[in-house]
Amino acid sequence: MKKQLYIIKIGGNCIDNPNELDTFLENFAALSVPKILIHGGGKIATQISQKLGIISKLVEGRRITSKEELEVVTMVYAGLINKKIVSNLQSKNCNALGLSGADANSILSKKRPVKTIDYGFVGDIEKINTEIIDVLLQKNITPVFSAITHDKNGTLLNTNADTIASSLAVALSQDYETTLIYCFEKKGVLRDTEDENSIISTLKFQEYQELKEQEIIYQGMIPKLDNCFDALQKGVQKVIISNIDFIKNTDSEHTEILS
Amino acid sequence: MKKQLYIIKIGGNCIDNPNELDTFLENFAALSVPKILIHGGGKIATQISQKLGIISKLVEGRRITSKEELEVVTMVYAGLINKKIVSNLQSKNCNALGLSGADANSILSKKRPVKTIDYGFVGDIEKINTEIIDVLLQKNITPVFSAITHDKNGTLLNTNADTIASSLAVALSQDYETTLIYCFEKKGVLRDTEDENSIISTLKFQEYQELKEQEIIYQGMIPKLDNCFDALQKGVQKVIISNIDFIKNTDSEHTEILS
Repeated sequence: MKKQLYIIKIGGNCIDNPNELDTFLENFAALSVPKILIHGGGKIATQISQKLGIISKLVEGRRITSKEELEVVTMVYAGLINKKIVSNLQSKNCNALGLSGADANSILSKKRPVKTIDYGFVGDIEKINTEIIDVLLQKNITPVFSAITHDKNGTLLNTNADTIASSLAVALSQDYETTLIYCFEKKGVLRDTEDENSIISTLKFQEYQELKEQEIIYQGMIPKLDNCFDALQKGVQKVIISNIDFIKNTDSEHTEILS
Repeated sequence: MKKQLYIIKIGGNCIDNPNELDTFLENFAALSVPKILIHGGGKIATQISQKLGIISKLVEGRRITSKEELEVVTMVYAGLINKKIVSNLQSKNCNALGLSGADANSILSKKRPVKTIDYGFVGDIEKINTEIIDVLLQKNITPVFSAITHDKNGTLLNTNADTIASSLAVALSQDYETTLIYCFEKKGVLRDTEDENSIISTLKFQEYQELKEQEIIYQGMIPKLDNCFDALQKGVQKVIISNIDFIKNTDSEHTEILS
């Protein structure tokens, strides 16, 4: 039987709130199964960019990662946030080790090709090298990934943390029974964004298509859910969308994604 | 027979010069022995602190690491510089993995006690956990350390990179035949700081004491050399002070420290 593995992504809202982050890390550290954490960036990178006088570029409403902004996200994601999380987890006796995709060539990506929009230094994942991750997990070490990858030609690339989480879950499903959990500010996928209690407890692909057509599911939830269904299709055992309560108590309300 | 291990520290001047850093990394990547890199910070942290409006505190000429500055050095050392070096080494087929002392609890330190000066968030090394380093080296992975450690209570600490290098060399001497190399801007220890060619090719402890008394060796060289002699006394096989040329060509001029 394959060993269990939890792959948990926490979003920016959690990172922006020190108390919430600490509670999450407390519960994460207490999980007895092997686990991997992937963290997003939060508002700190934007605040530091502004202070440094770097002007964020938006093209057609999409954020562009300029060379200057790549330096800021590398500092903030792979440095400040990653090391704060790692040292916090260490204080909670979770033997964390922080990684970017460049480290041990763990996540190889390719600079997004320019079609209509040049996204700048944004990477699309090409390959996960599971060997080092497996070595760490076997040593009871918990990998903590920031959303920075590289192209193996010396260029770091800003990469979507949700996609890193699903790609890791898929790649590690070969050897582990993987549960992929996206923790964000809501209890799950909502049927009515105005009503925090309208949680869809299970979401099947067919229903997802219908809810998209009805524009009940829209905007940022679409790429997140696409990642979820993609992960399930590619061998991930279980996919959950929840708030941080689920990590402590799996009976708390959440959305389970079903194929 | 013990396996060979090179532990190489590069200083800030090298990091501030992209071409010199690239040349160094090229030669470092080409070394066929197992190796560890430790890097200092360079001027980038100071520049970013200034841009962010953080005023550096000096007490009796010694720099104090405030909470704000700790955040900057964490970002810059463990994030920006570390990941740039790692991705550069990866492009040169050296399987680098960046670490701070918090990662896998590799370097445990203690906030420097306040005597006459409160240095702020500065750490003095208490323990090196060689297990993870050994696991990485066995997998042909090259650890790249930034000068950030932690206290295992959730606090990151700014730590002298020279001391990290000597502490790693000492700890790993149990299992490896270690060569500790400090690369800096000069070819070695100079008999006359005005004359770049007055390199002392071998320096014994007795001679070091005499040169200190004569004030031929002074200021920043003293803690560096103290680290060197300390390392030799505690089992490090060989200690070298050189510029980056030595990494490519061990026949180039350098200073070898002898007990």
